[in-house]
Amino acid sequence: MTAAELNLVNQTLVLPAALPLDGGQSLSSVEVAYETVGTLNPEKSNAILLFHALTMDQHVVSAHPKTGKPGWWSKSVGPGKVIDTSRFFVICANVLGGCMGTTGPASLAADGTPYAMRFPVITIRDMVRAQVALLDALGIEQVHAVVGGSMGGMQALSFAANWPERTRAVLVIASTARHSAQNIAFHEVGRQAIMADPKWKGGDYHGAGKGPEAGLAVARMAAHITYLSEAGLTDKFGRNLQDRAAKTFGFDADFQVESYLRHQGLSFTDRFDANSYLYITRAMDYFDLAEEHGGRLAEAFAGARARFCLVSFDTDWLYPTAESRVIAHALNAAGAPVSFVELSAPYGHDSFLLDVPALDRVIAGFLNQ
Amino acid sequence: MTAAELNLVNQTLVLPAALPLDGGQSLSSVEVAYETVGTLNPEKSNAILLFHALTMDQHVVSAHPKTGKPGWWSKSVGPGKVIDTSRFFVICANVLGGCMGTTGPASLAADGTPYAMRFPVITIRDMVRAQVALLDALGIEQVHAVVGGSMGGMQALSFAANWPERTRAVLVIASTARHSAQNIAFHEVGRQAIMADPKWKGGDYHGAGKGPEAGLAVARMAAHITYLSEAGLTDKFGRNLQDRAAKTFGFDADFQVESYLRHQGLSFTDRFDANSYLYITRAMDYFDLAEEHGGRLAEAFAGARARFCLVSFDTDWLYPTAESRVIAHALNAAGAPVSFVELSAPYGHDSFLLDVPALDRVIAGFLNQ
Repeated sequence: MTAAELNLVNQTLVLPAALPLDGGQSLSSVEVAYETVGTLNPEKSNAILLFHALTMDQHVVSAHPKTGKPGWWSKSVGPGKVIDTSRFFVICANVLGGCMGTTGPASLAADGTPYAMRFPVITIRDMVRAQVALLDALGIEQVHAVVGGSMGGMQALSFAANWPERTRAVLVIASTARHSAQNIAFHEVGRQAIMADPKWKGGDYHGAGKGPEAGLAVARMAAHITYLSEAGLTDKFGRNLQDRAAKTFGFDADFQVESYLRHQGLSFTDRFDANSYLYITRAMDYFDLAEEHGGRLAEAFAGARARFCLVSFDTDWLYPTAESRVIAHALNAAGAPVSFVELSAPYGHDSFLLDVPALDRVIAGFLNQ
Repeated sequence: MTAAELNLVNQTLVLPAALPLDGGQSLSSVEVAYETVGTLNPEKSNAILLFHALTMDQHVVSAHPKTGKPGWWSKSVGPGKVIDTSRFFVICANVLGGCMGTTGPASLAADGTPYAMRFPVITIRDMVRAQVALLDALGIEQVHAVVGGSMGGMQALSFAANWPERTRAVLVIASTARHSAQNIAFHEVGRQAIMADPKWKGGDYHGAGKGPEAGLAVARMAAHITYLSEAGLTDKFGRNLQDRAAKTFGFDADFQVESYLRHQGLSFTDRFDANSYLYITRAMDYFDLAEEHGGRLAEAFAGARARFCLVSFDTDWLYPTAESRVIAHALNAAGAPVSFVELSAPYGHDSFLLDVPALDRVIAGFLNQ
């Protein structure tokens, strides 16, 4: 299907006003790069705002401009698909702090040089604030639904808590209302790996040849393990050797799982900016929706008017089912309509991106109500 | 209690013969640094060979010469303690490939310069082989028991499988008969972190000022997370801030868990050699006791004559209970007497080193039979 047939458009909005940030600063001339799929109806009532996860971007359906790979949810978004763009107008924006067109640490500051570590530390709510500004610019008062998995789910929750009148439905997949100590710990390993790389240069590597690719690759490797289940890794790789009949008694990637991880790390550096990784992981670690609302999660949803749907996966140990249950209880306490389902899938956290037919049914059923 | 009262001795043996290795090479002039506690009886029948874990060493009871901290199991080993040295003669040797006196990559090769990456890749069985040579030198035909947790448990299993006539009892705590894909993956992250550090210099950093401390610290941080349970981290740190009232909107260690992990990483580099970390993790990843014995774990224990005791912890996700169950089933199939208990403890894998009274009872009960 061609871009024209999909009504697939990529563009960039410059926000008309400075964006206030949770940290107290504000950012002017913020650019928001976004993709839309489908057609906004005359009533502007059929929009779905889709939030992407940590290492994703606005290329939901379109091929990634750096890797050429299909959009990260092209399987599920399109005419007649689970998120049916013959009916819905899907919007997905690169997050604030990202590196695919939306303003982030690699963007030029007012002095004409990259922000690098002068970029302000942002929050999940700041990311959402930029996207609410995008909705404003598009003249969309209320979306049909906000949808997100993992960090996208955090944005969906933040949206529901802070702009409750702007959506009729909230779909949160494999996510959490706050980052746990273990979540923070894994991200901290990644940040330290990046910052330990001498090529990071305190963040001032932009435009100066190669950046901290080795550190970023290690960060990605550590994180990637958390996206997969132990059983999934065993099923996929076990102790199988990589293109060899016997162990080499050396430090090459003897095992397939080593080779796979190294590839994941290296290929990530082709498409992601190390400073963006620092800022986005920091935003996730700072996320604690209850804390923002007086320490009571139910309070966050006091003004919620939307229908909610929460999905977790039984093999997800990054944001396990218990985290979704906490959200469901808070929504119950707030009197919000919520359905909550734990799906069985072998892939761990990554299940939300993979082929899980039961997930498709839940998404379609919820959005098409 | 003084060293004399404990009968605490630290010494180094130079193996009289070259040590053959699983990789096909052999090592000459191997030194084995070891600690003994208690008194070997005239019949030489009361020895317990204790195997240490990845980052431990022979300093079971004695203070660590680099950190000054108490021996890693001084809580449990001593007169009247769980492993009662008024009755048993406890031997613990630094493993082959280690960095506390036993020959490893930092040792001098025949040409008078450190082996560095010229050190041969070794296996768990090679580590045990060096310690069997130590028993030979001490004139100990058969020990009362071999005991080990984590990597120490792998050595105990390897000992039982390959030198079955040399022990009457085998105690394996929080361990596994083979490294899983996820186990290998975490170790590979650590190795890549070390090798990505320019100060690693292909391993040739010995004696040339600072080594790859930043990389080693990241490796330690990633591994350390796997030693703790998610719930344990939450109980200990949660989202508590470190010595501050509010988040700083910066990249300092805002959270206690970040500060703790950074400290774990940095302090590790004061006492551990990066190349040793590479070699020892490699040995663990290569460990697959079934593979060594025709692919059937029960076959590994075909000649076993000892009593076995296996202990796992319900919150250990590094080597979960299922791994111990596999060993128990194989021992059952081999007709070996085995008791197997899963203990409840909140600390994750590290439970084997911490205060778990039920563990003390199991150890004492098993050893004193």
